[in-house]
Amino acid sequence: MDDRVPPEVRRTATEIDTMEIRGAATIADAAARALRTQATESDAADAEAFRAELRAAARALYETRPTAVSLPNALRYVLRGMSSTTVEGLRQNVVESADEFCARLERAQADLGEIGANRLRDGDTIMTHCHSTDALACVEAAVEQGKHVEAVVKETRPRNQGHITAKRLDELGVPVTLIVDSAARRYLNDVDHVLVGADAVAADGSVVNKIGTAGLAASARDRSVNFVVAAQTLKFDPETLSGGRVDIEHRAPSEVLSDEQRRGFDSVEIANPAFDRTPARHVDAVVTERGQFPPESIVTLMRELYGPEPGRPWEE
Amino acid sequence: MDDRVPPEVRRTATEIDTMEIRGAATIADAAARALRTQATESDAADAEAFRAELRAAARALYETRPTAVSLPNALRYVLRGMSSTTVEGLRQNVVESADEFCARLERAQADLGEIGANRLRDGDTIMTHCHSTDALACVEAAVEQGKHVEAVVKETRPRNQGHITAKRLDELGVPVTLIVDSAARRYLNDVDHVLVGADAVAADGSVVNKIGTAGLAASARDRSVNFVVAAQTLKFDPETLSGGRVDIEHRAPSEVLSDEQRRGFDSVEIANPAFDRTPARHVDAVVTERGQFPPESIVTLMRELYGPEPGRPWEE
Amino acid sequence: MDDRVPPEVRRTATEIDTMEIRGAATIADAAARALRTQATESDAADAEAFRAELRAAARALYETRPTAVSLPNALRYVLRGMSSTTVEGLRQNVVESADEFCARLERAQADLGEIGANRLRDGDTIMTHCHSTDALACVEAAVEQGKHVEAVVKETRPRNQGHITAKRLDELGVPVTLIVDSAARRYLNDVDHVLVGADAVAADGSVVNKIGTAGLAASARDRSVNFVVAAQTLKFDPETLSGGRVDIEHRAPSEVLSDEQRRGFDSVEIANPAFDRTPARHVDAVVTERGQFPPESIVTLMRELYGPEPGRPWEE
Amino acid sequence: MDDRVPPEVRRTATEIDTMEIRGAATIADAAARALRTQATESDAADAEAFRAELRAAARALYETRPTAVSLPNALRYVLRGMSSTTVEGLRQNVVESADEFCARLERAQADLGEIGANRLRDGDTIMTHCHSTDALACVEAAVEQGKHVEAVVKETRPRNQGHITAKRLDELGVPVTLIVDSAARRYLNDVDHVLVGADAVAADGSVVNKIGTAGLAASARDRSVNFVVAAQTLKFDPETLSGGRVDIEHRAPSEVLSDEQRRGFDSVEIANPAFDRTPARHVDAVVTERGQFPPESIVTLMRELYGPEPGRPWEE
Amino acid sequence: MDDRVPPEVRRTATEIDTMEIRGAATIADAAARALRTQATESDAADAEAFRAELRAAARALYETRPTAVSLPNALRYVLRGMSSTTVEGLRQNVVESADEFCARLERAQADLGEIGANRLRDGDTIMTHCHSTDALACVEAAVEQGKHVEAVVKETRPRNQGHITAKRLDELGVPVTLIVDSAARRYLNDVDHVLVGADAVAADGSVVNKIGTAGLAASARDRSVNFVVAAQTLKFDPETLSGGRVDIEHRAPSEVLSDEQRRGFDSVEIANPAFDRTPARHVDAVVTERGQFPPESIVTLMRELYGPEPGRPWEE
Amino acid sequence: MDDRVPPEVRRTATEIDTMEIRGAATIADAAARALRTQATESDAADAEAFRAELRAAARALYETRPTAVSLPNALRYVLRGMSSTTVEGLRQNVVESADEFCARLERAQADLGEIGANRLRDGDTIMTHCHSTDALACVEAAVEQGKHVEAVVKETRPRNQGHITAKRLDELGVPVTLIVDSAARRYLNDVDHVLVGADAVAADGSVVNKIGTAGLAASARDRSVNFVVAAQTLKFDPETLSGGRVDIEHRAPSEVLSDEQRRGFDSVEIANPAFDRTPARHVDAVVTERGQFPPESIVTLMRELYGPEPGRPWEE
Repeated sequence: MDDRVPPEVRRTATEIDTMEIRGAATIADAAARALRTQATESDAADAEAFRAELRAAARALYETRPTAVSLPNALRYVLRGMSSTTVEGLRQNVVESADEFCARLERAQADLGEIGANRLRDGDTIMTHCHSTDALACVEAAVEQGKHVEAVVKETRPRNQGHITAKRLDELGVPVTLIVDSAARRYLNDVDHVLVGADAVAADGSVVNKIGTAGLAASARDRSVNFVVAAQTLKFDPETLSGGRVDIEHRAPSEVLSDEQRRGFDSVEIANPAFDRTPARHVDAVVTERGQFPPESIVTLMRELYGPEPGRPWEE
Repeated sequence: MDDRVPPEVRRTATEIDTMEIRGAATIADAAARALRTQATESDAADAEAFRAELRAAARALYETRPTAVSLPNALRYVLRGMSSTTVEGLRQNVVESADEFCARLERAQADLGEIGANRLRDGDTIMTHCHSTDALACVEAAVEQGKHVEAVVKETRPRNQGHITAKRLDELGVPVTLIVDSAARRYLNDVDHVLVGADAVAADGSVVNKIGTAGLAASARDRSVNFVVAAQTLKFDPETLSGGRVDIEHRAPSEVLSDEQRRGFDSVEIANPAFDRTPARHVDAVVTERGQFPPESIVTLMRELYGPEPGRPWEE
Repeated sequence: MDDRVPPEVRRTATEIDTMEIRGAATIADAAARALRTQATESDAADAEAFRAELRAAARALYETRPTAVSLPNALRYVLRGMSSTTVEGLRQNVVESADEFCARLERAQADLGEIGANRLRDGDTIMTHCHSTDALACVEAAVEQGKHVEAVVKETRPRNQGHITAKRLDELGVPVTLIVDSAARRYLNDVDHVLVGADAVAADGSVVNKIGTAGLAASARDRSVNFVVAAQTLKFDPETLSGGRVDIEHRAPSEVLSDEQRRGFDSVEIANPAFDRTPARHVDAVVTERGQFPPESIVTLMRELYGPEPGRPWEE
Repeated sequence: MDDRVPPEVRRTATEIDTMEIRGAATIADAAARALRTQATESDAADAEAFRAELRAAARALYETRPTAVSLPNALRYVLRGMSSTTVEGLRQNVVESADEFCARLERAQADLGEIGANRLRDGDTIMTHCHSTDALACVEAAVEQGKHVEAVVKETRPRNQGHITAKRLDELGVPVTLIVDSAARRYLNDVDHVLVGADAVAADGSVVNKIGTAGLAASARDRSVNFVVAAQTLKFDPETLSGGRVDIEHRAPSEVLSDEQRRGFDSVEIANPAFDRTPARHVDAVVTERGQFPPESIVTLMRELYGPEPGRPWEE
Repeated sequence: MDDRVPPEVRRTATEIDTMEIRGAATIADAAARALRTQATESDAADAEAFRAELRAAARALYETRPTAVSLPNALRYVLRGMSSTTVEGLRQNVVESADEFCARLERAQADLGEIGANRLRDGDTIMTHCHSTDALACVEAAVEQGKHVEAVVKETRPRNQGHITAKRLDELGVPVTLIVDSAARRYLNDVDHVLVGADAVAADGSVVNKIGTAGLAASARDRSVNFVVAAQTLKFDPETLSGGRVDIEHRAPSEVLSDEQRRGFDSVEIANPAFDRTPARHVDAVVTERGQFPPESIVTLMRELYGPEPGRPWEE
Repeated sequence: MDDRVPPEVRRTATEIDTMEIRGAATIADAAARALRTQATESDAADAEAFRAELRAAARALYETRPTAVSLPNALRYVLRGMSSTTVEGLRQNVVESADEFCARLERAQADLGEIGANRLRDGDTIMTHCHSTDALACVEAAVEQGKHVEAVVKETRPRNQGHITAKRLDELGVPVTLIVDSAARRYLNDVDHVLVGADAVAADGSVVNKIGTAGLAASARDRSVNFVVAAQTLKFDPETLSGGRVDIEHRAPSEVLSDEQRRGFDSVEIANPAFDRTPARHVDAVVTERGQFPPESIVTLMRELYGPEPGRPWEE
């Protein structure tokens, strides 16, 4: 790690690395605060040195968890604020950017929920896939707005995150119908909106989310049902601006078939991709804490928040 | 039960009723043989009396299991053979029709498999849903033709009939990749044909099959992948000729969530429809033992085999 | 008119010509009866002469109203029955065919209604366009089956035949919402089936019906709403078998704009086509009195009823 | 009303409230001028007080007609200009923003018309729905460019605004064919562009316009005919950025059926929604006075003109 | 070759084998005549022997050119006529079937042309691909009907059969615009019908025709332009009834690139498939000499003409 | 030419006019440098005069080749940089903008290639149309990234630019299959991405490229194959912002048919459009040197780089 990186930033980096700090929002918050610390404590001789220090810190933080999309977003957002030509000015820039970022982050899900709720009408039925706190925030806000909302919840094999969604909705007083994933198309007839979260939103407007989302979106388009993605801007992946593909993780076969169940299936391969990619043309709107957007316009917001140019966060 | 129905026919009816005789093909075979027995043993005074006796027998058999689509098909097929104007002629008609029906039935799956196999090329990959012996027969025949075929098998929640399909294909030496239902769209890219069975084929060309088929077909059409239904003509439902809808059975919620899993979900409704309906426009071909057909032409074959007119099998 | 045509047939021809006999079914009934009369009264010397007489009568009748699709259908149906090689046999053929045709005709709308009603479920909402007694017969039968059906009725400019439909449905106790034609797409969301009649069904499966049907069908397909055409087989147009196009009549501009309204619009052209053509791919089913069919299979039923070969009804 | 609001602003508010000032552009112009007056006359002690005064004025104006989309747009545009940190600077900001806004507004329709006209080629035929001065401006500019343009005009029940469009086009020397709304699909074959106006354009790219637009757009997409919306940026609805839905007004049933006509229809409900919503995927381009845009990019222009953040115009 | 095959049949077989007899229609005609000869000259002792002889002859003929689709069609058509139970009756059956087949064949193209011409209106423009005498027959008949027809002709690389089509149309007085294949989509705007021939029509309604047809059909569907296939019933391939695939021939790379042109490309592979397969859903109608049909109904006509059962022509 | 235009700018203008300077990038580079020269050498008395001089120079350059899209883009980019209020400040603005523009230009293709390459995975197969160095740059970068890529290359009649593409790919070690244009759809099955260049990208997201691109894109959408356009921002056409249409050049008929080949075709018209327009909805992503974008967002980047307002580059 670069010598210019002070102990407190190193500590944050270590905690992210060892997963003491975890969760997309928590990591992003810690990273922004670390850059703020770096800025307030810097004794850089001139603006150039100050910038170099900050970039070194950003790089150190980035390299602890290069696949977490929220981490580089926090770094980019804070570094982009540096517009001054003096050390003091830059210090102030970083402090303000970091504070703004953290303040936004704290209320992002509530803001997003409010916006998503405004799309729903009293009496609407939604369908969900997997478990997304962003999507749930929309329903929660709608209930708080006094709207009656019902839900059809897909169980979401193999990990059945739909069970958690069903419980949360049930607690909100939302009438829930739980179905197997295959029954989705049949119930699209009775549904006004499909509402899902996202693991990442790419520059080409495609959405990476839990396996099963892409098929659900294709059926929703075929039946002309609204398909809405709830995703904080933290989920945007600026590396896709330079054409990068979000990698699709494959999980353990044992999630699909236990060892016991698999007896007599030894030669059968089990494929267990965790996510799939839904093309922009099957998505009607992406709801973020900054407003709702057609997926084709996400790239504009992505560039506004995290910088117009592809590249590593610490590169100039 | 009508007095004119002789003991042997009554016995068959009872065995169907008590499910001693079960399975679509077995029921159909027994019903055809029962009518044959009725015909050979009849001492009807004239042609009219003979016809009335046969219709009474058909009715008795039909009423034991009015929802089994293969039963009325067997009855219709045999009764349609009655063209003579004498008792002896009619007796011969029925015997011949029944024998023909049973002979067809015996080799139907093999014939169907051969036809379906001819659609597959060496090196093709298929995707399956649920467990269909008709669909498997196509793969088996292709393997016997010396073709290398690979398969992507959907597990088919909630009863996981895909596991049986995976085992059977594995035994045939077909390399199998097992996936959760939600992963289907992602693997359609790697697949040349979707190959499924059917519980019923309707006069409007729509196909009733295991829940999940309709969504798979919509995704296959969106990706321009061939969608083939393997279904013996026994699965045709002539009652749909008169607009009747194939009823969709709902199964026990416990298939989706065990009582133990459901704790804390008491107020959540679980919907567990067993089947769904795929519209004709999403199906490329229906493979039967009589040849392959576009789904829009099934109605013609249905009328040829089971009579052009809607109505109960025993009605004139 | 050919000398061989007897007075009674001439009288029928005249009455069709002068529109004393009018309405698709009434014309067809009269034409079939006229051929029956011709057959019973013929004193033809041999089979050939008998056939020539019947064809002459058919031609005479046909030429009174060559654009009425039901007239040649009646003639074709009766003439196709002639299979015997003796005068007596042919006479009996014609009498039987004519009686069968008239008997069918009498109960066709009720049969069709029953079949169409079977497609509807209790609680369904339909949308209608124009006024079709065939479509109404389906709703009426559904109501008689004890089903609750609701209706969205398009007014159907310029002649507002939707008002008649609304009245009839109201009398049946069906809750009706009347809308302008432009509002159709918005209400497709709330509708389970679109149910329309037909002026003609062509061999390529396309449906000619009141102007506005084709646009409604395109919207219904885009929203994945069932689109059903109710049409007696009398509406089939066998001339389309030989590629003939159903001509689209243009009506008076004054239906669109009264002379008074048109003041200040003198140079504006008003186009008022009465019908349009809906392609087969936008139609889910055609309901006839002989059963329901995908539009792509209508050609088969057309050939079965009216003969496999293109050509004038009286040609051999 | 807030005490800080001076008499002249109050007067404008009252005139908007009492509809002395009416029409989207007129209201917007008056609102911008009122803020300008407020700015020039303010004797605020410091920048903070100045900002508070302006926001109070904006709120007072907004609350007179909260559903008129042009009013908050004018307020947002002017308030967004306030970037200075001194009273004098802010005063100048407001004056400049208000002047710029009013100047733009004055030439917006002509600018829009020029841009829309550039899409049309000599010899093209357009189809219109309802009456839109923005859409007409495109045709007018095309005619001025020396292009020969023809038009198919839908009458647009129930209020027949198409008659006005037909008259205006006729006066421009454009050959017009007037049709009933149902005939639209048939004439799409002969048409190069559909050209309509908009009542509001939403952040998700959907377009709210006169009832019938959405169905026309679906048919145009099915036939691959260009679908263009002409809409000044005044019609953008920034409240949709926060998920808000444009409410669809329902008008009097008597527009559809006069009381007299309705006799015998007492129990028939008449639904008369004034507008519908066309999804972005059915629109090829939105022509504004700032250039033409794909509907999916309108959100970017909306944020540029009226601020990136959802919320009331007077909120910070 | 089977001993029961007489010299004259052997001679025909040899001439087909050596390509002295060539061309789909000529081969079919010769095959039907050969079976007729066999029938008239047979001295079979009983009906069974007669049938065996005819089947042996059919097999001998079939095996000379198993890939020519017209040859087995002729054999099937004639053999299907054998319904009698006596030698004399069978002889007469075969003679009649063969004569009927040959008579039909002689006028098939003219009949087809008449039917296809009826689909065209005065003033229509068609687009063609490759060179098809069946398609040309439609235009020729339309011209004879006095209709003005124009044509856009694709050159059809690599063999430029479009040049022949352009010449023939030019000779008919049809104004022709010749384009490269890539320009097709651009000119679809100006075209009312795409009109192509077929090398084979399959039981699933798909059409095998010159490479480029499938892409043209996809573009025509996207632009909602009528797509019509002109194909005599001789082109139907009954082997596809049993799932058989029409093999796609690959031609010499030198058709694409001469040896000289290929210098410097030695390692580049050249793929030159002669045909492709257009799915039924992209075809509006198939025009045959027996009438026009939706592609989904071709299977019905195929079974009517050549027998309902899959299998070799000589198999019972 | 305006008097204020100095000799060096005049020389550049002349060289562009006489095509000594040619090629999109070379022209743009020269134009930017000319404005830079103008700025450094200007002795304008005040800022207003300086601006007028620069605009006069821009106009002089523009008018030498008004159809070259890269020329006005260079002029707009440089002129947009003028934000200062002093002559010295403006001079510096122009120098910086011009240097930035030229620096960007120099590495644009390499940057674009890197971004496009990131979309490709190891083992992917692409299909190309025509010859595009931007598209090739993507493949080249992918090969440098160590990915194995294969290519299907369309020959691209009438000028066979595909031959050049095949050679270049062959030299890169990419296995190439060369096909005629008509074979494209058949090989889309085997292809992961279609990758083409562009002659111009319009504000409505449509792409103007070599004739045949639009049909290929329609087939790719129908088969759900990724369709990617590689286009430097130099290819954006800001005149389309004001609705302008990119004109489609028609080339000599002799490209399609040599005079010799045309003998006997004298009356046949040959249409040889060089380009066609692909609508945004058939394009998945546009890859530029500034990142990848959905086509619907290109307008935003276009306004960012070349100014938000329609109009001539030299207009204020």
